[in-house]
Amino acid sequence: MTEYRRVALIGLGLIASSMAHAMRAKGLAGEIVGHARSAETRATAREIGLVDRVCDTAAEAVQGADLVVLAVPVGAMGAIAAEIAPHLAEGATITDVGSVKQAVIEAVAPHLPGHVHFIPGHPLAGTEHSGPRSGFATLFVNRWWLLTPLEATDPAALARLRSFLTGLGANVDEMDVHRHDLVLAVVSHTPHLIAYTMVGVADHLRRVTHEEVIKYSASGFRDFTRIAASDPTMWRDVFLTNREATLDILGRFTEELFMLQRAIRMGDGDMLFDYFTRTREIRRGIIEAGQDTAAPDFGRGAPVPEKKA
Amino acid sequence: MTEYRRVALIGLGLIASSMAHAMRAKGLAGEIVGHARSAETRATAREIGLVDRVCDTAAEAVQGADLVVLAVPVGAMGAIAAEIAPHLAEGATITDVGSVKQAVIEAVAPHLPGHVHFIPGHPLAGTEHSGPRSGFATLFVNRWWLLTPLEATDPAALARLRSFLTGLGANVDEMDVHRHDLVLAVVSHTPHLIAYTMVGVADHLRRVTHEEVIKYSASGFRDFTRIAASDPTMWRDVFLTNREATLDILGRFTEELFMLQRAIRMGDGDMLFDYFTRTREIRRGIIEAGQDTAAPDFGRGAPVPEKKA
Repeated sequence: MTEYRRVALIGLGLIASSMAHAMRAKGLAGEIVGHARSAETRATAREIGLVDRVCDTAAEAVQGADLVVLAVPVGAMGAIAAEIAPHLAEGATITDVGSVKQAVIEAVAPHLPGHVHFIPGHPLAGTEHSGPRSGFATLFVNRWWLLTPLEATDPAALARLRSFLTGLGANVDEMDVHRHDLVLAVVSHTPHLIAYTMVGVADHLRRVTHEEVIKYSASGFRDFTRIAASDPTMWRDVFLTNREATLDILGRFTEELFMLQRAIRMGDGDMLFDYFTRTREIRRGIIEAGQDTAAPDFGRGAPVPEKKA
Repeated sequence: MTEYRRVALIGLGLIASSMAHAMRAKGLAGEIVGHARSAETRATAREIGLVDRVCDTAAEAVQGADLVVLAVPVGAMGAIAAEIAPHLAEGATITDVGSVKQAVIEAVAPHLPGHVHFIPGHPLAGTEHSGPRSGFATLFVNRWWLLTPLEATDPAALARLRSFLTGLGANVDEMDVHRHDLVLAVVSHTPHLIAYTMVGVADHLRRVTHEEVIKYSASGFRDFTRIAASDPTMWRDVFLTNREATLDILGRFTEELFMLQRAIRMGDGDMLFDYFTRTREIRRGIIEAGQDTAAPDFGRGAPVPEKKA
């Protein structure tokens, strides 16, 4: 089952390296070619044999590829698209893995020739690690991979990409571009900003030492630090390019926080209790939806069982 | 190695039930007696054989016990102390597992007779689950158990309790009461309130459906929901009783969040990048301190290896 003859991975971070491992494990690509802007990353990729061939330029990497994956920070997508555009093979599919979709489409689409299929995408999978050594074959298993196809998308190219992503282990869903950016602002972008902020607060406090914060981080803060350890470049670009939705959700968050803060100040225990009871229900919904496990000593990132065929 | 002849657990939730399992696994108690206010909880405890004897009243449970553990929400500690005080054995040690220490001391200490040793404590361990079925023997392994001894504490009673807690697998540390409440406001209480708030925001949004939030919760939001699924009664009491420190840290958090929000609005990418780079360092510190694991597919709550002797 070879879905594509040659897959070019542009950018060799967590997502691309996990795709490489998964493609090999599942036999989804005839040849895997890779490129990273940094010479150090290319050297590491060669050293660990991450892909079949590492190219020094993106232009070289995409030549003859029938699938090109743009796996660079959102802010770098436009320049890469301009660079590779003249070298893309006739009929190739171009996708990306950016966490924001409207901004990527605006940056990438104008550069691409009419003879390729551009299908924007976003895998909802990740860890706080980055770089070519951070990938693993099961990262996408049982995780959503959202596609936001443009109006004129070729159904055959879309079906082939969906089949390939399903082969990586992901559950593929299609979504409106604008809706994607709003939903992600709620479930991912704003939570990340809040986690970064809380970790920053802890770091700045002079009365509580750095050592104490680290030592006693169990239960609560530790999960925040995990989220706030995500790749700085990637997240800078997410906030700059999904600005409107993030600021909207942040405004709502602040209103809500002030309401709870007031309840604490006024000693309104009933209000706090009711609020905390409601949020607990949401957690139950997530467990029932299979997006996490309820087992008490079996955590978030534990190996996910293989999906049943 | 029996550390106490008879241990009375008052409250049979996550912490107490985990203590029961750990005491049995390690042979740390001659007899384990338990009491819970709710008849349903007592019935469950009897059904699963959680402890050796379940008593219908706290007064009965503490009789003849040389260790009494108050494992009820912080707001219920005072009433329980008043109830058990006349029934405490000469020389017994009384400890608690409340997340706030100053308020517990103020509520409990005035009730206790002079012939017992009150040593306030707080295990930094937990999951989002509660109730008598949620406990497991390894909950405390490699986790901190903070004690905030009062000035007149008997050294022998303190040494015996430390030895017992170490036997449960915990790392025991002593801390000033006031400092405990401030440090915990930073590493636990405020992060919990923020997680509750973010989950509440997602729930209230009408433009993003409940179903979408649950479905796409991977990466970011999911960790918040786990934190925000913690016991509502326990957390209501934490915020009401550690009000000052929580409001202080919340104020700092809001200032910091507004600064980042402004950077997003103004498109200040350098500021965001620098901030996110600093927070990543804190995460590294936590991993080096052994409070979490860096393995990419091995998560937060995964079974902790037994400590080397």
